[in-house]
Amino acid sequence: MTVVSEMLRTHPTGVGDTDETILKNCILACLECLYSCTACADACLVEPSVADLRGCIRTNLDCADVCDATVRVLSRHTGSEGDLVRRMLEACRDICRACADACERHAEMHLHCEVCALTCRRCQAACTELIATL
Amino acid sequence: MTVVSEMLRTHPTGVGDTDETILKNCILACLECLYSCTACADACLVEPSVADLRGCIRTNLDCADVCDATVRVLSRHTGSEGDLVRRMLEACRDICRACADACERHAEMHLHCEVCALTCRRCQAACTELIATL
Amino acid sequence: MTVVSEMLRTHPTGVGDTDETILKNCILACLECLYSCTACADACLVEPSVADLRGCIRTNLDCADVCDATVRVLSRHTGSEGDLVRRMLEACRDICRACADACERHAEMHLHCEVCALTCRRCQAACTELIATL
Amino acid sequence: MTVVSEMLRTHPTGVGDTDETILKNCILACLECLYSCTACADACLVEPSVADLRGCIRTNLDCADVCDATVRVLSRHTGSEGDLVRRMLEACRDICRACADACERHAEMHLHCEVCALTCRRCQAACTELIATL
Repeated sequence: MTVVSEMLRTHPTGVGDTDETILKNCILACLECLYSCTACADACLVEPSVADLRGCIRTNLDCADVCDATVRVLSRHTGSEGDLVRRMLEACRDICRACADACERHAEMHLHCEVCALTCRRCQAACTELIATL
Repeated sequence: MTVVSEMLRTHPTGVGDTDETILKNCILACLECLYSCTACADACLVEPSVADLRGCIRTNLDCADVCDATVRVLSRHTGSEGDLVRRMLEACRDICRACADACERHAEMHLHCEVCALTCRRCQAACTELIATL
Repeated sequence: MTVVSEMLRTHPTGVGDTDETILKNCILACLECLYSCTACADACLVEPSVADLRGCIRTNLDCADVCDATVRVLSRHTGSEGDLVRRMLEACRDICRACADACERHAEMHLHCEVCALTCRRCQAACTELIATL
Repeated sequence: MTVVSEMLRTHPTGVGDTDETILKNCILACLECLYSCTACADACLVEPSVADLRGCIRTNLDCADVCDATVRVLSRHTGSEGDLVRRMLEACRDICRACADACERHAEMHLHCEVCALTCRRCQAACTELIATL
């Protein structure tokens, strides 16, 4: 998905003081996590043990919604609004951590939770790395 | 829109320690603000003075996206994930304040900015009130 | 939620040939349905009979996402892109009908499904009415 | 972004009769287009010629929202609701075509529009290909 680098490079104002590689990684991680959590919620829903996976499904749905808003905010570079980027990244990092924790509890039984836990950890790390540069 | 009260009242686990009226007001304010900011961005875009409204449009778009994620998180009551609700509400309160500030600057010239500024202030206040109860 | 009327009335280009009351009703119905379906999915998830409600939850989630996109498209009046509005309204009408059908099957046992079914029927009707004017 | 293949492969019910490669390509194309259109709207907004780019910005915003809903619907495989998938794919294909057309008109002057036009064409093609298999 080279489109993220290409859009960052062709934005008329550039990305300001933000590190382009770290920003790109965070955008990609949020997109990946938006998909992965939506798909994992659906996969959990058809498992015979769905009653044990309620917490995981709920956290998946929250995580998808927060990643969605975060990637949209990160895609705009025309002047930051105070601490909005930081606040969204903190919310995103925290829900990704919670979702990774929830998925890891079922990772041995459900391969989709194993995959989703890794995606959430990557997104948690990418948010943490981007926050550190702000 | 009585559906919010009805859904809150019929949720099997209830809304826990959260004040139902304050939560309802915040959900309604976020829905209203999601719409208002999307519509205001579009209205600004067709104004002859669009070049002066870039900051307002950008903030409108961010505000719509954050309100969207916030209302989705607030609609789920099946166990909170740490501080997620608080973090989202803080992000939502801050972007609503920034968007109200941006719209107020054009409120005398553009009626849609005047309407949108009021909606953003209501949502900022509703988030602040809900945060205080957490 | 008078903000919808106020934004429609203050939009610089107006809403073209669209009937303002019918458009307003459809925007309100989509916002209501976005909330109602997100909340109903969460409520179904904590029911003891969650395993019987999988189809309902899945349809709820699809319906919330389609209503979300529809309300955003309907909030922009700056020139229509071919048949996009019609196509989105048809998708929205169909998923609202499917979701109302799914919720009605459980309406006697689960009050939240009864409330959500009514919301989906209103949104289905509002989309149908708006399509008829295009 | 190998996570799409991995989630499709580990979903408990599989993806039914759908061709896994074609579905994967469409999910990736929608994610890419959601990002690209959000970023292109923001880039257009800061161009000196923003007044000439209003139509492009509006179409970008619609396209991002429709791609977002489409990728969420495509991420769920637990039983299709009538023609919802087809209807969403048709809406997505049409708005991607309109957005590619709009961006191409400015592609020589604005590199971000050139990049975004290509992303929209890929998504249009991916939707068309998936529709053909339904």
